[in-house]
Amino acid sequence: MALKAEIISIGSELVSGQNLDTNAPWLSRALGELGVAVAYHSTIGDDMDDHVAAFLAAAERADLVLTTGGLGPTQDDLVREGLARAAGVGLREDPESLAAIAALFARRNRPMADRNRVQAMLPEGAEALPNPIGTAPGVWITIGRAAFASMPGVPNEMKLMFAEQVVPRLRRRHRVERVIVHRKIALFGRGESDIEAEALDLTARGHVPEVGITASDATISFRIRGEGLTAEAAWAQTEETAEQIRGRFGPLVLGEGAVDVADALVGQLARTGATIATAESCTGGLCASMITAVPGVSTYYLGGVVSYSNRAKVDMLGVPAELIQAHGAVSPEVAAAMAAGARERFGSDVAISATGVAGPGGGSPEKPVGLVYLGLATADGVETRRVEIGPEQPRDIIQRRSAKQALDWARVALLARPDGGASR
Amino acid sequence: MALKAEIISIGSELVSGQNLDTNAPWLSRALGELGVAVAYHSTIGDDMDDHVAAFLAAAERADLVLTTGGLGPTQDDLVREGLARAAGVGLREDPESLAAIAALFARRNRPMADRNRVQAMLPEGAEALPNPIGTAPGVWITIGRAAFASMPGVPNEMKLMFAEQVVPRLRRRHRVERVIVHRKIALFGRGESDIEAEALDLTARGHVPEVGITASDATISFRIRGEGLTAEAAWAQTEETAEQIRGRFGPLVLGEGAVDVADALVGQLARTGATIATAESCTGGLCASMITAVPGVSTYYLGGVVSYSNRAKVDMLGVPAELIQAHGAVSPEVAAAMAAGARERFGSDVAISATGVAGPGGGSPEKPVGLVYLGLATADGVETRRVEIGPEQPRDIIQRRSAKQALDWARVALLARPDGGASR
Repeated sequence: MALKAEIISIGSELVSGQNLDTNAPWLSRALGELGVAVAYHSTIGDDMDDHVAAFLAAAERADLVLTTGGLGPTQDDLVREGLARAAGVGLREDPESLAAIAALFARRNRPMADRNRVQAMLPEGAEALPNPIGTAPGVWITIGRAAFASMPGVPNEMKLMFAEQVVPRLRRRHRVERVIVHRKIALFGRGESDIEAEALDLTARGHVPEVGITASDATISFRIRGEGLTAEAAWAQTEETAEQIRGRFGPLVLGEGAVDVADALVGQLARTGATIATAESCTGGLCASMITAVPGVSTYYLGGVVSYSNRAKVDMLGVPAELIQAHGAVSPEVAAAMAAGARERFGSDVAISATGVAGPGGGSPEKPVGLVYLGLATADGVETRRVEIGPEQPRDIIQRRSAKQALDWARVALLARPDGGASR
Repeated sequence: MALKAEIISIGSELVSGQNLDTNAPWLSRALGELGVAVAYHSTIGDDMDDHVAAFLAAAERADLVLTTGGLGPTQDDLVREGLARAAGVGLREDPESLAAIAALFARRNRPMADRNRVQAMLPEGAEALPNPIGTAPGVWITIGRAAFASMPGVPNEMKLMFAEQVVPRLRRRHRVERVIVHRKIALFGRGESDIEAEALDLTARGHVPEVGITASDATISFRIRGEGLTAEAAWAQTEETAEQIRGRFGPLVLGEGAVDVADALVGQLARTGATIATAESCTGGLCASMITAVPGVSTYYLGGVVSYSNRAKVDMLGVPAELIQAHGAVSPEVAAAMAAGARERFGSDVAISATGVAGPGGGSPEKPVGLVYLGLATADGVETRRVEIGPEQPRDIIQRRSAKQALDWARVALLARPDGGASR
């Protein structure tokens, strides 16, 4: 019989709707990939009776129960005691967990607060799930017919603990047999409906493998679902479809997996050996920040200027003051001068620039909110592009979309270059 | 006794984690504003046994049960029948609902599909909740001690039906007269357990008003729950506690509501009239990007340099090359020179800098991953700080935490200044 799993999210800030729970959907998808179906999610507040009742109900109807949250050091963190009550046992201090918590504080050169001791308490008969990046160890315990894994609510800590501690225990305890893989191919540069119109044969109901399409922050992703007895078989089922998508959409394809524009750009920088610099006005450092979020980029990214004031454009990038006066800071002329200035001052192969109106204020009939000029400087000269994100969009979307378009322009420009040789 | 409510979200796409459920948090907040506490959320898939079991469990423990989803015309829409089974009654066709569905199709100039007839079926004894903007009427029925309101999953339809149909019935059935407010006070600069240790009297069970504490990305929030007969009374109940928190934590307090470090810094810039510039290495533009995410900041933020390469530190910020050679790019000396250079070149009152090892590569025993030096330059001179985020942390956390600490340092430095006069 198929394994039945249940997820319990814990926290008054969740049940009251103050915070959005992203852990439960993530865990559902992760379990789905292991072939484990989730039948229930429950969300409860920081109340002991609700903890015990929810744990007992889950212990009766599920084989595997994952809980998130409620393992902190404060008085409203009730999971350790709730598990003990549901299991009908007492709590004990786990010396290894205590040592791990103390070591974490020591590594951070901070004294361990007395309250954190409580995080080393475990129900009798439970096993601690080590947490290498936070103070809360998880708890692995059997109650009724179900195995419980209680994890912290902090998403990074939960995800690491799930992968390193829960999945191996799950594989040992239950024979996890079917393998489902989800491949994701990311595209950028055209709208979702445009892209889907050219892939209706693949996204049609009944197509094997199943293909879905989703858009997030202007990056479009095809998701291909493969299924088989082994990971290899599940993967093989997706191959032909993946090839068709790559073939049809060519330069729009950023890559496979959790790839976004910045990763794909850094991939092209690494392939070609080219270096890059940034000059930003309306995007305010977002181009730089997206690029430097990618590990190992320091060989290729030389630096950038956030020229938020006109004086900074003149002093730091060498944009002629007359150019700003004649055309305004938001103009193709200034975008070009910014990119050329950054390329020269940082000595990079390529430089990108962005100047525009991020809003909500500062728009005018000729230069509305959402209007952004991008610049691209290479050894071949400087080009500019006009981008309109739409005056109805919020500031963060205007900043993000225009930054992504600037990065993507540089990526596509590098696609044509040969491997290895940076042409200065 | 207080009314106890439960929310059940229905749909296999929710329980599998493919779609994020935003209805349940919205309903929780809407009920909270009416003074109705939500004790449970459950999410179930399109399975009849799970429907009946979840409805019966809710009928036992709640006074009011709101369900969303599962009212469509297709075979996996099981709520109508699930409610009938849980109530132990049959289904009947509701002529008014059928007429409303037919009229909706007529308005859209589309023929009504035969399958849509099923949407006019109601459990015996139930009342239809009209849906003026969709084909699925809702269902109002009593099962056990609880009133059930089953609504469509489409957010717009659900919200309209809740406001127009459910709230009036709720007011009629239960005397809803309490109002609940949630206030949030955000703090930065110390750990969650440290902060709670100084507020144990406030966060203790039984404290009126109820006070919770949560941490998100190193920002700590106190949540104060006030309750009263009017919004004013509910707010008044929180005042003394809010004052106590502000009094106890003084400079750690960022502000009230959805405030983070950047908003609070920009608030201090606006209050004092001071201007700021940034010089970033390991944070790669994140300080600039956080600051420029705040609307209206262009008066105060003059610009920044992302000096990712050593050459950029020398050329763009005037850091002496010998200083880098003698102490390394990750050193208090270079952090100080970066901040001083940015302050001078941008002509700002204040400048912040960050240089460190964001990882995952590039660490050494003396300069491990997670070590960051911050600099703060003002008219009084330059100071530096050593920050250790922890070598076990991922790159994005190291970048975010150190950027937030840099911004917060500038915020606290501005706190002491008088209103209005920027002292250059």
